Amino acid sequence: MNDTRDPNAPESAVETPDVVETQGVISPGFIAQVVGAVGDGDKPFLWRTVKELHPADVADLLEHLPPEAFRKAIHLLGKALPAEAVAELSDSARLEALHELTDAAVSSMIGHLDSDDASFLLSDLEEDRRDRILTRVSATDRAAIESALSFDEESAGRLMQRDFVAAPVFWTVGQAIDHMRTVKEDDLPETFFEIYIVDPAFRLQGSVPVSRLLRHGREKPLNEIMKETAVHVRPEMDQEEVAYLFRQYNLASAPVVDEAGRLTGMITIDDVVDVIQEEAEEDILALSGVSEAGVNQSVFSAVRARIPWLAVNLITAFFASAIVSLFAPVIDQVVALAFLMPVVAGLSGNAGSQALAVSVRAIAERDLEGPMIRRAIRREGLTALINGLIIAWSAALIVLAWFHSPTLSLVIGTSMTFTFCWAGMIGILAPLTLRRFGADPAVASSVFVLTSIDMASFFVFLGLASLVLL
Amino acid sequence: MNDTRDPNAPESAVETPDVVETQGVISPGFIAQVVGAVGDGDKPFLWRTVKELHPADVADLLEHLPPEAFRKAIHLLGKALPAEAVAELSDSARLEALHELTDAAVSSMIGHLDSDDASFLLSDLEEDRRDRILTRVSATDRAAIESALSFDEESAGRLMQRDFVAAPVFWTVGQAIDHMRTVKEDDLPETFFEIYIVDPAFRLQGSVPVSRLLRHGREKPLNEIMKETAVHVRPEMDQEEVAYLFRQYNLASAPVVDEAGRLTGMITIDDVVDVIQEEAEEDILALSGVSEAGVNQSVFSAVRARIPWLAVNLITAFFASAIVSLFAPVIDQVVALAFLMPVVAGLSGNAGSQALAVSVRAIAERDLEGPMIRRAIRREGLTALINGLIIAWSAALIVLAWFHSPTLSLVIGTSMTFTFCWAGMIGILAPLTLRRFGADPAVASSVFVLTSIDMASFFVFLGLASLVLL
Repeated sequence: MNDTRDPNAPESAVETPDVVETQGVISPGFIAQVVGAVGDGDKPFLWRTVKELHPADVADLLEHLPPEAFRKAIHLLGKALPAEAVAELSDSARLEALHELTDAAVSSMIGHLDSDDASFLLSDLEEDRRDRILTRVSATDRAAIESALSFDEESAGRLMQRDFVAAPVFWTVGQAIDHMRTVKEDDLPETFFEIYIVDPAFRLQGSVPVSRLLRHGREKPLNEIMKETAVHVRPEMDQEEVAYLFRQYNLASAPVVDEAGRLTGMITIDDVVDVIQEEAEEDILALSGVSEAGVNQSVFSAVRARIPWLAVNLITAFFASAIVSLFAPVIDQVVALAFLMPVVAGLSGNAGSQALAVSVRAIAERDLEGPMIRRAIRREGLTALINGLIIAWSAALIVLAWFHSPTLSLVIGTSMTFTFCWAGMIGILAPLTLRRFGADPAVASSVFVLTSIDMASFFVFLGLASLVLL
Repeated sequence: MNDTRDPNAPESAVETPDVVETQGVISPGFIAQVVGAVGDGDKPFLWRTVKELHPADVADLLEHLPPEAFRKAIHLLGKALPAEAVAELSDSARLEALHELTDAAVSSMIGHLDSDDASFLLSDLEEDRRDRILTRVSATDRAAIESALSFDEESAGRLMQRDFVAAPVFWTVGQAIDHMRTVKEDDLPETFFEIYIVDPAFRLQGSVPVSRLLRHGREKPLNEIMKETAVHVRPEMDQEEVAYLFRQYNLASAPVVDEAGRLTGMITIDDVVDVIQEEAEEDILALSGVSEAGVNQSVFSAVRARIPWLAVNLITAFFASAIVSLFAPVIDQVVALAFLMPVVAGLSGNAGSQALAVSVRAIAERDLEGPMIRRAIRREGLTALINGLIIAWSAALIVLAWFHSPTLSLVIGTSMTFTFCWAGMIGILAPLTLRRFGADPAVASSVFVLTSIDMASFFVFLGLASLVLL
């Protein structure tokens, strides 16, 4: 293989700017073209394409390739693959790309990344390969990466980068600017929005947004324009907590300090945006009983992500079924009950899902705290009662029109009013209880809530029917 | 009323820093204290509290007050209420606060805010009050706000602010810095992360991150260090699209340009973070059939947000019920079918919800585009088949053990395998179809998907049972 241009390459077909113009949406035609180039082993075309695209678009493009083309593309690109593009790949694609790349290629990528992205890249690798790669990077980078990896996954320590700008509290604006003009490019973060002011023991004193630094004359002492930082993130802090603080205080970046108040890193908004997105997604999926999903997920991992909840539900469904079986005599006598059972359970289940989604969201937003809890429970109770009355007695009217049985109509109206209230209450109380016991309200709630509503629906509806109709 | 300190105010009880220390979590004790102060009309305490807290925490605190205390607190605070705190309130609380404040108080707030927040605040007001308030603000502010309000809600035009820093393409670093040092504070945005480079017709040429500006000497021409901006946002662009671009390209801010390429505004990440959060929330709620939820939502608005979907479901539930009624003869003969119907429908419904959540998420993430669609449909189909086989035949075993009827066991196993596949397919095809017709996949999918699964489950299970058992 050689890296120089192949004179036979289909020069006329090179029209990559297409992608850039449509801002992130990669056209099927362009993907087909890239797949073709990969098949032909057309390195020059791939190298040029990758160079012209934003790394995030390179990642998108690679993810859109069929599995074999993906692997071959990574192989053909080798060191030409920008490190940032690899960092932007989805979890499974990133892992596969790293698998395809040589240790030399990976370690050269590591050198180009800020420490948070570098450790993120290495965190997925098996320990011995990680160690092999770390021996090839500079001692400073190695130390930063190893310290980042010592923190828990999903902690602030993993999100933070070691590259930041700090200035002593006695400096002036001019000294700070001169420092940034002279320091080696590699020793500064790629972008930063504030500089941190520290005392001689490197304890954080405050921060100066870069935009504020620019507005003051060179002679201005930094300690006159610095502000106290609104939040101090600790490296052990959960990433969800970090995301909350960024949202709450509209932050673009935040300093990370250790237990002694010493500045140890910086977290920037781009990483936090990913966390916010991730957490919201987790809640959506968890509420539907899916533990994980991804653009390039394999069938095997999709099955594994979904079967546990289905298995639990298989058991609980038969519990509900057992309750129905208790009432065989009344169903035998009035078969219409079998037609109406799903109406009672289905509608109450929906009312429960609604209450559950509202509550899980409110917990994630930290809106269910202190005195808000009682107010929210009251609201859910009243809402369930009102919706229950409206829906239950509409259903009763439909049943009256259908079966001409006032008794059956009364049974469905009464029991649905009750099961709606049950659904509303369990929909808020279950996630609150789970939170109290330290469990994730989104994950476990659905199973518990929906099963309990099914069971209550069958028991109340068929039980009342037995009392009245038998 | 007077604004000077009341000598009888409970001075000793003043311990606000509590809140700041716990970073955003407002303790019930502190809320009780504030409620007490509001009851006593203790203005000095309220004014001090508000001054010591971050505006976002002030908003949180106000939202945690009971409704009457909230209104009275707004009234007591009046002009002392920071504009930023009002902007941070939830929709309904903000509206109520604006209602409580005088025109004079609101117009003075408007003057303190960046134009995006100012127009956000005014967008909720009735037109004549808005006009009254606008007559009280400066002509520049009024023009900026009116032009922002001329764009659709949820468009980039509403998110963008008119305050930004632009420099002519022929300037040097030193000239740009001098300009920022001399310009009036009010004419600059509160924070900014990049300055925009424009030609004499104010057409955008590129941008220079502030952190890069600082690294270069005063003599350096800006056009040598500027980079092409990765994305050009148009004011008409949907906010969801804007959020996607910020996430895709890890942006902290982005310029907004009109159709002629002229720079008209800037969007910053803090507003985009709110959009990302909002859109994710909307999807969670929409998937459960809730149109709106909020921390201080009234029972009336909660009922209104949830009843439409319940009403649709009432109709669809009776459709499913009608299908069951077609099979009355077989249920009459084998009452066990009535016990097992909910098992088939419930488990298939869950498999459908899983596929739906995964697909809706993937659409929102733009992971379902071009060739990815076919791959995803294939994955959903295979996953549904495998999960279906596992769950359906486990259910068949349970039925065999329970009823000792191989026929009934075969009926449930076969029909559930089929309904699982149906659920998986409809779970991905319904949102894709809705998207093709321009509808929001999250909103309408649930109704359609779950009803169709219920109907398919009853029809296939009871139909097969009729064929085999009668």
